[in-house]
Amino acid sequence: MHSFKEIVQAFETRLREQAVFPELPQNLYEPCRYLIELGGKRVRPALCLMGNELFSAINEHTWHIANAIELLHNFTLIHDDIMDKAPLRRGNPTIHAKYGLTAGILSGDVMCIHAYQELAKTDKHLQELLQLFNTTVIEVCEGQQMDMDYEQRDDVTVAEYIEMISLKTSVLLACSLKMGAIMGGASNIQADKLYEFGKNLGIAFQLQDDYLDAFGDAEKLGKQNGGDIKANKKTYLLIKALEQAGEQKTALQDLVETDTTTKVQDVLVIFKNVGVDKVCRDEIERYSQKAFLNLEDIDVPDTQKKPLHDLAMYLLQRDK
Amino acid sequence: MHSFKEIVQAFETRLREQAVFPELPQNLYEPCRYLIELGGKRVRPALCLMGNELFSAINEHTWHIANAIELLHNFTLIHDDIMDKAPLRRGNPTIHAKYGLTAGILSGDVMCIHAYQELAKTDKHLQELLQLFNTTVIEVCEGQQMDMDYEQRDDVTVAEYIEMISLKTSVLLACSLKMGAIMGGASNIQADKLYEFGKNLGIAFQLQDDYLDAFGDAEKLGKQNGGDIKANKKTYLLIKALEQAGEQKTALQDLVETDTTTKVQDVLVIFKNVGVDKVCRDEIERYSQKAFLNLEDIDVPDTQKKPLHDLAMYLLQRDK
Repeated sequence: MHSFKEIVQAFETRLREQAVFPELPQNLYEPCRYLIELGGKRVRPALCLMGNELFSAINEHTWHIANAIELLHNFTLIHDDIMDKAPLRRGNPTIHAKYGLTAGILSGDVMCIHAYQELAKTDKHLQELLQLFNTTVIEVCEGQQMDMDYEQRDDVTVAEYIEMISLKTSVLLACSLKMGAIMGGASNIQADKLYEFGKNLGIAFQLQDDYLDAFGDAEKLGKQNGGDIKANKKTYLLIKALEQAGEQKTALQDLVETDTTTKVQDVLVIFKNVGVDKVCRDEIERYSQKAFLNLEDIDVPDTQKKPLHDLAMYLLQRDK
Repeated sequence: MHSFKEIVQAFETRLREQAVFPELPQNLYEPCRYLIELGGKRVRPALCLMGNELFSAINEHTWHIANAIELLHNFTLIHDDIMDKAPLRRGNPTIHAKYGLTAGILSGDVMCIHAYQELAKTDKHLQELLQLFNTTVIEVCEGQQMDMDYEQRDDVTVAEYIEMISLKTSVLLACSLKMGAIMGGASNIQADKLYEFGKNLGIAFQLQDDYLDAFGDAEKLGKQNGGDIKANKKTYLLIKALEQAGEQKTALQDLVETDTTTKVQDVLVIFKNVGVDKVCRDEIERYSQKAFLNLEDIDVPDTQKKPLHDLAMYLLQRDK
């Protein structure tokens, strides 16, 4: 069994060796290389490899599937950054900011197809893997659309929000694990349990992201609290607070629409008055518990689950 | 054996039944439905089905592959239209013009994945089909990049131009035919001949497009001559003319940079003086002959080749 750190190290080497972009046309592939070389946590490909190793030794083909997942994830980042007008990614200029809109669109497209090219190197379980991958990427697109739709709406419910983050974020984590499990020879039932583990873990992780942005330790986070509040982002905290604010609802709605220097601290006061900080922590705990139960329920010895268990603990107990 | 017209009719029915977009999120899928329902000539899926029927009766799975090809083609149109800032497609507003940039990017993305979803319905020959499809789509992206790069350059050669149109246009025609041939049980050698037929046909077709824009019968075309000249597009005619213009080269270069009312007719005079109209016709003839030789060379009875032969004649002898 390998730890997350060991898996990521090995993956970085394989990715560099196996998923090589052509030199030309330079304007197409330079942006691709730029983004991949900026790094990232490589959580998704690691989950795929760990999903395989949960059931058996890592299959040679699984490295290609892990490459496919990382390339696909980067493709979604490129296009999301255009849609979100984001200037920075991983602390550096986004592709469209650095190379222009056209490069953003076309390099994203070709990165997506290179993901499928990595996937097509597997002959084992190909149809099953391809169908799962397709379904997942379609769900990611749908989640992104919901996210943008919600920006225009004032009546988003908590259930809708959970569905959106589940599609936009969790299903790709779940898919990564399940693709690994399939390659490791898991039965459908075991692979599906691992999928559910990933889905619940992803929701807990995203909710924690919302929580830390508002209530995290600014020093450890390396950024000021309330970035989401300043940007008027519809987070779990805001949606839940509006739902439960009672007579403070109008005050909160008014605050959201202002841009005062005390906006963040004023909103945080209401969040605490309404108690959504605790509700959010409870919800993170609930999804975490679900995830750990899914993992427990998988029919392999506990020792083999340790790396995934450790990774989940690390992801959920982070304070930054 | 079925004619192009019969195949297209049957395809339209299957596409409507089989490649159905979900209702929600509406902002994601309405643009997809809009573009697909605008129609188009459906040449690529028809080539796939005809490629199958050249070797044996149409396999049920081939319809899904034909759907995949048409969806993929439409995905490239959506993103190309953004990059080309095109306001109209098939006589109607383009997706980004009608629904906005975000819809253009994301609906294009999801259309692409739906193409892969149709492809994944086939279990027969899946890896081979998927690899061919991936390679082709990557080439289409590379061709689009070259096309945009060439807009910024003054020294594009004829060879570079032929490579660009081959990647941007011809390889998808060739791939469509070959995927059909694979499904029809063709040997690699026969399938590759059909691929070459499609590639040469595509180049001839694209050169003819350039030719007709300059020298076609404006009445039959339903538009004025010289749209490419007005838009300063680097066509075969312009590249070849600059290469062969001799002492008229400076005059031609100056003309290209002007925007006078007589620009089109002045450029056409130089094209004729230099003789690139004839060179272009010869080149169309040369690629057409290559294509027909590829078709002749395929080891099936001539009667079975008739629909493809007729379609090629129709595409190459069109005057609009």
